[in-house]
Amino acid sequence: MLEVKTPQEVLELIQKEFKPLGLTEHVPLAAALGRVLAEPITAQEYVPDFDRSTVDGYACRASDTFGCSDAIPAILNVAGQVLMGEGADFVLSRDSCAYVPTGGAIPKGADCAVMIEYTEDYGDGTVGIMKPGAPGMNLIFRGDDVFPGKEILPAGRVLTAQDVGALAAIGKTSVPVVRRVKVGVISTGDELVQPDEIPGPGQVRDVNSPLLTAMLTQFGAEAVNYGIVVDDEQLLRQRMQRAAQECDAVILSGGSSVGVKDAACRIIEGMGELLLHGIAIKPGKPTILGKAGNKPLIGLPGHPVAACFVAQLFVLPLLGRLMGQKQEDYTVTAELTESLGANHGREQINACHLNREGGKLLASPIRSKSGLITQLAGLY
Amino acid sequence: MLEVKTPQEVLELIQKEFKPLGLTEHVPLAAALGRVLAEPITAQEYVPDFDRSTVDGYACRASDTFGCSDAIPAILNVAGQVLMGEGADFVLSRDSCAYVPTGGAIPKGADCAVMIEYTEDYGDGTVGIMKPGAPGMNLIFRGDDVFPGKEILPAGRVLTAQDVGALAAIGKTSVPVVRRVKVGVISTGDELVQPDEIPGPGQVRDVNSPLLTAMLTQFGAEAVNYGIVVDDEQLLRQRMQRAAQECDAVILSGGSSVGVKDAACRIIEGMGELLLHGIAIKPGKPTILGKAGNKPLIGLPGHPVAACFVAQLFVLPLLGRLMGQKQEDYTVTAELTESLGANHGREQINACHLNREGGKLLASPIRSKSGLITQLAGLY
Repeated sequence: MLEVKTPQEVLELIQKEFKPLGLTEHVPLAAALGRVLAEPITAQEYVPDFDRSTVDGYACRASDTFGCSDAIPAILNVAGQVLMGEGADFVLSRDSCAYVPTGGAIPKGADCAVMIEYTEDYGDGTVGIMKPGAPGMNLIFRGDDVFPGKEILPAGRVLTAQDVGALAAIGKTSVPVVRRVKVGVISTGDELVQPDEIPGPGQVRDVNSPLLTAMLTQFGAEAVNYGIVVDDEQLLRQRMQRAAQECDAVILSGGSSVGVKDAACRIIEGMGELLLHGIAIKPGKPTILGKAGNKPLIGLPGHPVAACFVAQLFVLPLLGRLMGQKQEDYTVTAELTESLGANHGREQINACHLNREGGKLLASPIRSKSGLITQLAGLY
Repeated sequence: MLEVKTPQEVLELIQKEFKPLGLTEHVPLAAALGRVLAEPITAQEYVPDFDRSTVDGYACRASDTFGCSDAIPAILNVAGQVLMGEGADFVLSRDSCAYVPTGGAIPKGADCAVMIEYTEDYGDGTVGIMKPGAPGMNLIFRGDDVFPGKEILPAGRVLTAQDVGALAAIGKTSVPVVRRVKVGVISTGDELVQPDEIPGPGQVRDVNSPLLTAMLTQFGAEAVNYGIVVDDEQLLRQRMQRAAQECDAVILSGGSSVGVKDAACRIIEGMGELLLHGIAIKPGKPTILGKAGNKPLIGLPGHPVAACFVAQLFVLPLLGRLMGQKQEDYTVTAELTESLGANHGREQINACHLNREGGKLLASPIRSKSGLITQLAGLY
């Protein structure tokens, strides 16, 4: 007999029972945002590949400017001008300088750049420097950003916009990412009709399929909808088996009644192994987890709010595990605006609105009867 | 002469100078996630449309159970059974009850549901109730979730997965959303090559176009790439004009050199009006904002880190304004792990890594020379 597990035990069970699928595909850089990196990205080259100026001004040897001032400028010969996007193929000798634009290459021999504001062009091939430079001043050196062998991004990272920028910088335009995990979504219940249907007496629209599909999409998984199955063990088994064949994971939601719950357990057991029957949280206790091979088979509560909480807290981390995803969830600590009744022996999950007032983060709990999804809408 | 403006002044300028485009399109529910709602959504019906039980058990009149206990159960006649997904088309008379599954309809006359655990079926058409009910116990009433005229979601809302669930619940399968704002992205600079090219001497790859495109995509805008333009005022003007004709907004990035900056100002002025020349932040000061009609023309710094910060802090809010988007940004307060040098007269923007330690949120500043994009990669 399987016991009800604590949230921590469930998360450990997920790590223990499921392994990353390890399926890689290559996508163009423009499609890499939000995807999970399949392998670490290591630079093969220097970025920049040359010493650059960070200012418009004159590249020179700092030692030639030591002691200069507005009153006694250092007079340097203008040995040349560096053009943007071209190399600086000359060597600066002592007492000479070269004009460089912001981002331009620094000629050999120079070890600093003086901003143009602190210089005066005398028009006779010489420039006066009014402010002493120092070695390295206003320069980015070759490889300051990236050098060969430097790891830019670790495997498992969910790629951000900045990561896309970094990949562009090193010329990685074909990006090895983890194939999106494919998740079959099934709703069950005799009372359910499709969202575009008018419910008859005793019927309600299926909320969980669209809700879970949206959560999966946002997470970066591919949701496959297997529709609504009436409360019939044989039909449910067939649909579950088909979904498990075609997908990497299956989520069955609904079946709040005892009969369907038991049927779901029998079906999952028949397809492989039942790992979990109940999580000590409220709402969300009647959650089932099993596996067929490495494929998770998940039974979620029928109440949309409970299904939403369990999906967020356990299903997405499980899919992240399958995708080898390393992502940190940030939590915030807030002060409750009103007291919430404790629940004996079960961790309580409560949606709330967050507001900042006077530098303090306040959490106003959303009071709702179980199952009222519109109470969660309006939440950010 | 335009003065440098503070961040707050820039945000106010954006609100004052730009108006929502007000362009609506309808998308199927499955495509609504992340889109901006174009009009408030008001329910036309009751959800649920009938009184429902939240437990498996017996619906009855609470008053018939008052005073009952394990020792002296209330004996009620079983008047019927409610099937899932069907109406309860009978009226319960006194001293009778009906079996209802979780989510099933409650017959008229009943005002509570008693969990099956507290009942005993005597098999002779009667049931013993061991625990008294109370009116309303274990029931969700018609319209508890939604009733006609109730506003479910406000206009301007960026739709979450939960919102998609709420829209499904009320049968809103065609969702009025704001058309994605179309943003032209141009990079300029003689030193730039495409990310899939090998930079020659003095050249670097264009980071800003892929970076900004990813940021725009993530935000929910449509980015249109107009490529790299060399430092030539005539070419740049032509490209800007084409982008402004085809898009709702144009972002030009790069042109760190004084000449290009001035050219960008002249071009924007020629196309309409220059609104802003410089923001008092570091990095990001050399930012330009103008408009051609209601179309923003934006000049971002060439340094990827500065471009990224300015895009996040000002460009995305501006695009949100065009899309009539109402979204609250949450900020967190964290403790710096080391002191950061202040900057005179300019608000300083610094990327940092966030870590939670002992209940405290710590911000470790990322020290980087301006322009080093890979320093931002690795950030969540």
